[in-house]
Amino acid sequence: MAAPVSIIGASGALGFGLAVRWGRAGVPVVIGSRDASRAEEAARRAAAAVPEGDFSGAENAQAAAGADVVVLSVPFRSQSETLTNLKGVLREGQLVVDTTVPLAAAVSGRATRMLGVWQGSAAEQAAEMVPDGVRVVSALHTVSAPMLSDLDHVLDEDVLICGDSKADRQVVADLVERIDGLRPVHAGALEMARIAESLTALLISINVRHKTHAGLKITGL
Amino acid sequence: MAAPVSIIGASGALGFGLAVRWGRAGVPVVIGSRDASRAEEAARRAAAAVPEGDFSGAENAQAAAGADVVVLSVPFRSQSETLTNLKGVLREGQLVVDTTVPLAAAVSGRATRMLGVWQGSAAEQAAEMVPDGVRVVSALHTVSAPMLSDLDHVLDEDVLICGDSKADRQVVADLVERIDGLRPVHAGALEMARIAESLTALLISINVRHKTHAGLKITGL
Repeated sequence: MAAPVSIIGASGALGFGLAVRWGRAGVPVVIGSRDASRAEEAARRAAAAVPEGDFSGAENAQAAAGADVVVLSVPFRSQSETLTNLKGVLREGQLVVDTTVPLAAAVSGRATRMLGVWQGSAAEQAAEMVPDGVRVVSALHTVSAPMLSDLDHVLDEDVLICGDSKADRQVVADLVERIDGLRPVHAGALEMARIAESLTALLISINVRHKTHAGLKITGL
Repeated sequence: MAAPVSIIGASGALGFGLAVRWGRAGVPVVIGSRDASRAEEAARRAAAAVPEGDFSGAENAQAAAGADVVVLSVPFRSQSETLTNLKGVLREGQLVVDTTVPLAAAVSGRATRMLGVWQGSAAEQAAEMVPDGVRVVSALHTVSAPMLSDLDHVLDEDVLICGDSKADRQVVADLVERIDGLRPVHAGALEMARIAESLTALLISINVRHKTHAGLKITGL
């Protein structure tokens, strides 16, 4: 049986999309939300979409304790507060998969523009904030949340994975690969998240012009 | 007959690759270099690779005067000096296609890292430096120079095009489309070059890990 994954902020669009896709792939998913009742409601919605899935709902801190891999899927404006709240819960050996993108939309700017994060990227901010011994990998910035949630949509795109340890990246690559149509691509050290995160803004700009939900593929692999 | 294109810095790898591809596609190419004899030598090499092509070589300033579309293909460390030298030559109505990428390699840093450019991107620096009435479009950051120059290599990837005017982007899109296997993608305003340029660093990071010449494709279009 697959190891469970916890998703912090899984009542949001990206988190929920990942939950149902992993649930369908046989990965038990702990759905976290700031509010336990919203988490349980999201777990019920996920189970309705994927009856064979194994979903449970819990308040974020409890959800974060429930798996070795914890996906952080909250808006950038909540990332820092969420990580502060999880400080007492995250434990050595856990792997945090940060999906956060510092779009200027977080401060009422444009979704095609990025905020400058002092650490370099949202993922590097996360790496600075997690307790010692918790590792951070950055991934899943370019997959459209609505396309993930729409289980009838056939995915066919790549997921860039940035992290300082190849073994950690591989854990995330294996998880990404469980979702049909997603191909993981090792993109380098965690600092490359500065570029990977900004692709969300670029794809939003392309979406506006082409009226689509664009994704990314790397050629030549 | 197709309108000619001038390539500034066409004795370099990317510029030369573009020259032979456009030459093969029936676009007359003016090959510019800092040194007239190097330009002429590059034009001879291009003609040897593409005997049916229409190539001429000229010193950069003379080359820049020779076409309505001027592709700027110099290393970032030479971009500012080159544009200063072209100030007296570029004229209203011309379109400069900036391909420059501010890799940290320009100052002996890593090719997977970017320099911060005060204007936001190399393309925005170019836009600030060209004479009034000269427009700038940013493109061609993610196409591998060796893969362009290798005419036996079958290209199959996208080219992001950033510019403030849709009509200007379309001129570049039409030029890109003349090269078999390249698909132009309108990526938004010139400021999006900040992200498009950084993709070069990301692809270099992927190349290192995957021993390839990676390129980019946008899905969902």
